[in-house]
Amino acid sequence: MFRFGSRLLYSAAGSGGFAGAKGIVGTVGLGRLNHVAIAVPNMEEAATMYRDVMGCKVSEAVEQKEHGVSTVFVALENTKIELLHPLGENSPIANFLKKNPAGGIHHVCIEVDDIHSAVKVLQEKQIRIIDPNPKIGAHGKPVVFLHPKSCNGVLVELEEK
Amino acid sequence: MFRFGSRLLYSAAGSGGFAGAKGIVGTVGLGRLNHVAIAVPNMEEAATMYRDVMGCKVSEAVEQKEHGVSTVFVALENTKIELLHPLGENSPIANFLKKNPAGGIHHVCIEVDDIHSAVKVLQEKQIRIIDPNPKIGAHGKPVVFLHPKSCNGVLVELEEK
Repeated sequence: MFRFGSRLLYSAAGSGGFAGAKGIVGTVGLGRLNHVAIAVPNMEEAATMYRDVMGCKVSEAVEQKEHGVSTVFVALENTKIELLHPLGENSPIANFLKKNPAGGIHHVCIEVDDIHSAVKVLQEKQIRIIDPNPKIGAHGKPVVFLHPKSCNGVLVELEEK
Repeated sequence: MFRFGSRLLYSAAGSGGFAGAKGIVGTVGLGRLNHVAIAVPNMEEAATMYRDVMGCKVSEAVEQKEHGVSTVFVALENTKIELLHPLGENSPIANFLKKNPAGGIHHVCIEVDDIHSAVKVLQEKQIRIIDPNPKIGAHGKPVVFLHPKSCNGVLVELEEK
């Protein structure tokens, strides 16, 4: 058994179990990983690779003008990969691809039961939220983004399920 | 409907459905997303955040000396986050954290039925594999890593389920 300082890492529920992540009072209560979003420099090549090489079901591309992206979803058995490509001049993905020309993981999206309750907990615990007022995300549901500085360098989207 | 060139993006199976990613002949056949691996500069802080703020079940830390990492697993409803921290002087994670001091997503791990069959398909389709001879990974199962240059900048681990 490996210790961090004097403290053992057990689950918050204290049961020692490892399933069922939600329902712990006073926490955000992360649910399902909705998707892993990958910014890609060439959407057709990326979609073709996941379909013809990897054997995944791949959705049609959808233009999300209000978010400055076009998206293609790749189905895995338990979750999805979301391929993102810039759409329009002010796309947030264009900047990401300038810094990462080959592409890369842009964010992960995890579901929560109640976005307002999640925001309240995050603010109490001083986790930085990019904009604490939930917006309607690319799937028509309210979302917030947690700042990578509060999440080990990872941009985390929380989406109300 | 949005077109890529003259070609519509439908599933490889052609059914138009979106569930069940596997079983398409002659492809890798991606299955479940086993985990998203996040390299973290401070394991205790990261584990505490996912446990006490996010409300997730968090495993004990395990030292994997042969892989140069210590790992903590965070349970989500449908998959896991694997927190990685360097262990030993030759840890591959140490270099990653030098380039990304705040941490970041290091790789994603996706399950396949048969790793040797997957390698064969990938080689036929000229997808770069870092070492095409499967090694026993951190979970005791054979794995290979796909080169980010073949996967939109993403390091992809394939693990035999």
